[in-house]
Amino acid sequence: MSSTVGRLLRVTTFGESHGPAVGAVVDGCPPGLALDEAVIQAQLDRRRPGQGDLASARAEADQVEILSGVESGLTLGTPIALLVRSTDRRPADYVELAAAPRPSHADYTTLRKYGLRPASGGGRASARETVGRVAAGAIAAHWLRVAHGVRIVAWVEQVAGSDRAVVDHATVTSTDVDAHPTRCPDAALAPQLEAAILAAKADGDSVGGVIAGVCRGLPAGWGEPVFDKLEALLARAFLSLPAVKGFEVGSGFAGAALRGSRHNDVFVPREQGLGTATNRSGGVQGGISNGEPVTFRLAFKPPASIALAQDTAGYDGGRVALRVAGRHDPCVLPRAVPIVEAMAALVLADLALIQASRGPVGGS
Amino acid sequence: MSSTVGRLLRVTTFGESHGPAVGAVVDGCPPGLALDEAVIQAQLDRRRPGQGDLASARAEADQVEILSGVESGLTLGTPIALLVRSTDRRPADYVELAAAPRPSHADYTTLRKYGLRPASGGGRASARETVGRVAAGAIAAHWLRVAHGVRIVAWVEQVAGSDRAVVDHATVTSTDVDAHPTRCPDAALAPQLEAAILAAKADGDSVGGVIAGVCRGLPAGWGEPVFDKLEALLARAFLSLPAVKGFEVGSGFAGAALRGSRHNDVFVPREQGLGTATNRSGGVQGGISNGEPVTFRLAFKPPASIALAQDTAGYDGGRVALRVAGRHDPCVLPRAVPIVEAMAALVLADLALIQASRGPVGGS
Amino acid sequence: MSSTVGRLLRVTTFGESHGPAVGAVVDGCPPGLALDEAVIQAQLDRRRPGQGDLASARAEADQVEILSGVESGLTLGTPIALLVRSTDRRPADYVELAAAPRPSHADYTTLRKYGLRPASGGGRASARETVGRVAAGAIAAHWLRVAHGVRIVAWVEQVAGSDRAVVDHATVTSTDVDAHPTRCPDAALAPQLEAAILAAKADGDSVGGVIAGVCRGLPAGWGEPVFDKLEALLARAFLSLPAVKGFEVGSGFAGAALRGSRHNDVFVPREQGLGTATNRSGGVQGGISNGEPVTFRLAFKPPASIALAQDTAGYDGGRVALRVAGRHDPCVLPRAVPIVEAMAALVLADLALIQASRGPVGGS
Amino acid sequence: MSSTVGRLLRVTTFGESHGPAVGAVVDGCPPGLALDEAVIQAQLDRRRPGQGDLASARAEADQVEILSGVESGLTLGTPIALLVRSTDRRPADYVELAAAPRPSHADYTTLRKYGLRPASGGGRASARETVGRVAAGAIAAHWLRVAHGVRIVAWVEQVAGSDRAVVDHATVTSTDVDAHPTRCPDAALAPQLEAAILAAKADGDSVGGVIAGVCRGLPAGWGEPVFDKLEALLARAFLSLPAVKGFEVGSGFAGAALRGSRHNDVFVPREQGLGTATNRSGGVQGGISNGEPVTFRLAFKPPASIALAQDTAGYDGGRVALRVAGRHDPCVLPRAVPIVEAMAALVLADLALIQASRGPVGGS
Repeated sequence: MSSTVGRLLRVTTFGESHGPAVGAVVDGCPPGLALDEAVIQAQLDRRRPGQGDLASARAEADQVEILSGVESGLTLGTPIALLVRSTDRRPADYVELAAAPRPSHADYTTLRKYGLRPASGGGRASARETVGRVAAGAIAAHWLRVAHGVRIVAWVEQVAGSDRAVVDHATVTSTDVDAHPTRCPDAALAPQLEAAILAAKADGDSVGGVIAGVCRGLPAGWGEPVFDKLEALLARAFLSLPAVKGFEVGSGFAGAALRGSRHNDVFVPREQGLGTATNRSGGVQGGISNGEPVTFRLAFKPPASIALAQDTAGYDGGRVALRVAGRHDPCVLPRAVPIVEAMAALVLADLALIQASRGPVGGS
Repeated sequence: MSSTVGRLLRVTTFGESHGPAVGAVVDGCPPGLALDEAVIQAQLDRRRPGQGDLASARAEADQVEILSGVESGLTLGTPIALLVRSTDRRPADYVELAAAPRPSHADYTTLRKYGLRPASGGGRASARETVGRVAAGAIAAHWLRVAHGVRIVAWVEQVAGSDRAVVDHATVTSTDVDAHPTRCPDAALAPQLEAAILAAKADGDSVGGVIAGVCRGLPAGWGEPVFDKLEALLARAFLSLPAVKGFEVGSGFAGAALRGSRHNDVFVPREQGLGTATNRSGGVQGGISNGEPVTFRLAFKPPASIALAQDTAGYDGGRVALRVAGRHDPCVLPRAVPIVEAMAALVLADLALIQASRGPVGGS
Repeated sequence: MSSTVGRLLRVTTFGESHGPAVGAVVDGCPPGLALDEAVIQAQLDRRRPGQGDLASARAEADQVEILSGVESGLTLGTPIALLVRSTDRRPADYVELAAAPRPSHADYTTLRKYGLRPASGGGRASARETVGRVAAGAIAAHWLRVAHGVRIVAWVEQVAGSDRAVVDHATVTSTDVDAHPTRCPDAALAPQLEAAILAAKADGDSVGGVIAGVCRGLPAGWGEPVFDKLEALLARAFLSLPAVKGFEVGSGFAGAALRGSRHNDVFVPREQGLGTATNRSGGVQGGISNGEPVTFRLAFKPPASIALAQDTAGYDGGRVALRVAGRHDPCVLPRAVPIVEAMAALVLADLALIQASRGPVGGS
Repeated sequence: MSSTVGRLLRVTTFGESHGPAVGAVVDGCPPGLALDEAVIQAQLDRRRPGQGDLASARAEADQVEILSGVESGLTLGTPIALLVRSTDRRPADYVELAAAPRPSHADYTTLRKYGLRPASGGGRASARETVGRVAAGAIAAHWLRVAHGVRIVAWVEQVAGSDRAVVDHATVTSTDVDAHPTRCPDAALAPQLEAAILAAKADGDSVGGVIAGVCRGLPAGWGEPVFDKLEALLARAFLSLPAVKGFEVGSGFAGAALRGSRHNDVFVPREQGLGTATNRSGGVQGGISNGEPVTFRLAFKPPASIALAQDTAGYDGGRVALRVAGRHDPCVLPRAVPIVEAMAALVLADLALIQASRGPVGGS
């Protein structure tokens, strides 16, 4: 019972990896927003499998249908239901799952939690579940742009322990990101990342990496003290994605090595109010946006599904040399970029609405 | 509106840094649990300021009073209200705050969010707010021990870019952790950490570091797929703490550099069901505990309050050389250990209750 | 942002009256429950329009499709998405709405709330929105029967100020209720109710009435003190239905006229524990079920859509003689019976799961 | 786990009838509101026991202390913790509870739910629990007045089956209500109500009755479609009060007897927008306020605690002639008036904040 998230902008996702459909219901989108399928489809297309050598060969059209909440091209303020049919299901790929749980997959924990084994092993623990998130997040991101001028851009920063991409947080765009199939906007580094992915693929293996991102254009004041700090909700949103093992905001782990006199972001005057000379805070102080760009990094482990044989135990405890069939990605990072952006958008849109609920007291 | 957390075990905290009291209300603690103030006081004493050279000189007794929910030494199943009076308040320390927001503090964002400046600058953005969390978390941890045999241990792993403490996740105890004032259980490393803290203090500066932790004894099956994954709720809980800038579960960022064939945790038979030969997953697969220890690491930035002058801007945009008075910690990590344990306990107890709600269908 | 309800069993509904589809997502249904479309369709068929003289002539097949959460005839424990396409939409019926808001409809409040006028006037304020509730409630009721032996039966007790049906709460079944098209199980009274409905229809007018209900088989212990009392959640669930203006549990308003010595339900021994000799409490004491049947009554106002001309004001303030076209029910009560049962089931199933989360402490 | 209510204005109450304290935490109150204890104390004094012949002889000063969230007379936007110590506890009054559960009290259901028997029988099921609600509601009502000009007035309309008080919803004030100790503003009827209460008291018995209320000054647009309809949240809030057995909004049960042509509220032009010529809707259409006064009625059963002997069963199933000692009210209605107002205020303030979160799209 954990497929709904958000306080004022509430998103509920549904659908198993190998069921008939996936989707989401977005409740609380403000009324009067111009919206059609194309806005959503653009982000779904960015996460779609079957696009080139770097991703899974599963061929899903992933066409979204808006079932409610939009009329004459405008949102009504009512729940927006989004449906994506699954067309390329191959349950036969999962026959081997009968004997042994896949290492580092959710097959075993799903069995222990629910007492049953879905055909696809882990049920909701699947990249396919993120279709609903991307569709919902596209609406949130669209509203953030139209209503607040906020832009969210994520990109692939590292793969398999590579160097880190050099990216200008102030200017990077989605166009820059999509210029290379790796979604790494550092043109000098991108071929190296691609080579690492293809090498793993050739070996029947997989690689992980780091996605970085920036949210520009937030006003100061978004984020709620204590349990709903902006970075806390981002961390929860990102760690709820399959394969994410780490999160940093601003200076992250590197900041832990600095002294306060080096780490503090001193204030400087801006046209409106104050800004900071540096941004080790990552745009957040005390859980509240300060008007600087919100910056983050996410660690993705390598996909657990690999073609190489694994020496593991079966459900009965016996030794098994398991080969995982199916059409899996050697590296999820390029396709995960729009997913990360979607989660950031859902968090920020919800916090924007919450902050808007606070008006001045007494007519002032 | 963000001071309540949890679904079945719901905790609400209250209190500003320099107000008359701090505390919490814990709703949903199961009935019949033996509980008195001593259980809670033990953890509060571990986070108390004024204990030795490493911490703030603020002298708070931090005595907790149970106002409700406990009768004849047993919990009633009703809300447990916990009150801690603040006795050593010195608002005069904050006089300088009138002119300029403290760099990397919440003074400025609080002003922009709420339109006012609390006497203490950041209102709830204060280490003092964590008193309520520690008190509430002590109850959750106590219930986890009694009802499920779960043990949560956190410790200081790094300070100011030091080496990482070598700690055995399978055996480390709170007694080991408390053996040294730094709360680093690596006896060889602890003096080095202490020296780093004292050096920063002598310089009027501050240092950050890393706290690591382990939760042992969880059964398989805790954690909810999608938005309430175990690691997602941990990440949110930890990032909601002041000064935390990063989170890792299991292999974290290092895992992002490995190939799948190296990262996967193959299964091995255990007395009951299956275990894993390695634990790069950090005890969680698909957001659900797998029965292995849950492991995590947290990056803490250096405290923003330093005695050194900072060249910053005032509220009016003018240049200010700010010195932050008050009694602040050169390093929060030793005192943060019980706070981290508290947040982990709140997350796990809530997930344990949620999982218990699922019974077998049809009388089986 | 209010289309999700429940804590552990969470239901989200979607769909406007004249949009392409309506439906629901049910999150938190326990795994391993035998479930197929037929279980749900049975209740949808009971609320379907176009069935005889008493209801709207709108002809909707209202066939439900399960999109997720069920595999091989068993629930997975994941969200169950339910889709019902709308096929008989006639937006032309709503042309007159352009000039004036329909009296006692949600056209005007929707405009004032959202700043727009949906084609169908009130958007979500429509009997059609309840399709998703009935579908979701059918699953909850099914689980309550299978897992707990709970039975929920509602019926039409009064129409247009008629006498009250005489019904035995201990024995009445849905078969009894469905024996007459009015869904009044008092065979002597039912023809009188039917005549009242047909008389109103002939006059181009509408009638309201009272639906009563009983929930049998609850154990003692369901319902949470204070804000989530069993009767509080029932009241909220029922008052969230279109046209409901009043709610009673147990003795209701009549009980307010009695003295305590007459109203109190004294205890009597039962095979297991205690029962009560009378049931003025309506099966609930202190917000918690006591093991006796939970009894309730609901007042439904007459439908606002009538063929008679109404002397009202247009959006511009000018006088309008409005006739509401469209295919509307002269009386909603017969069709509302399964809707009422659905809402009761959603409340009880959620409370059952919450109560199950409380296990004994310390292994006892 | 049900002592927290509200989405943006969130209130958590705590405290048992015979514990050391009761209170509440109010999270989400907008910042900058002038607030001190006197605002809250005024409503607490109205519900205080020990005031005259009509109420319990329990003598509680019920002095509130603000523990957090207010500084220099202004709210900070942070949680406001409110504490009321209990001073006149007499557990000896509850000795008889050891043998038998009190009829129509929560003693038995509390035992069955939690497996234990609090000293006071029903734990949280006590009028004393409402102290926290009144304190919290006083803040909400204060904010509604200052920020929106909303006024909430409740009164005693009937006692023990008496005639109904004739009260002008458009003009009645709290001063009118408090003019008579019964809190019935119908000066002609009030003595009759008083006599009924005193007669029951003389007989060692108790009486119930009806409280009516009106909320004036709401703009159109408050209340959320579907599950959070304004009347649904009111119903939940009121039915969560001890002893409430029924709820009506607008025409209520009487409206169920009318035809649509008689019940519909036709629109009339107003200075700003439209109003309705009648108000059978009770100020709400489709769950959203329409700008007319919100009107409601609540049925209170007679208090279960009576001095008369009751022929009931003990916990062991044996026959017991129970006399309930203690200091109880023969009629709770006069003291319940501020409690009812508090619950209405909490609901409306939350909905006002939610509506405020919806801004115009696209910079308009």
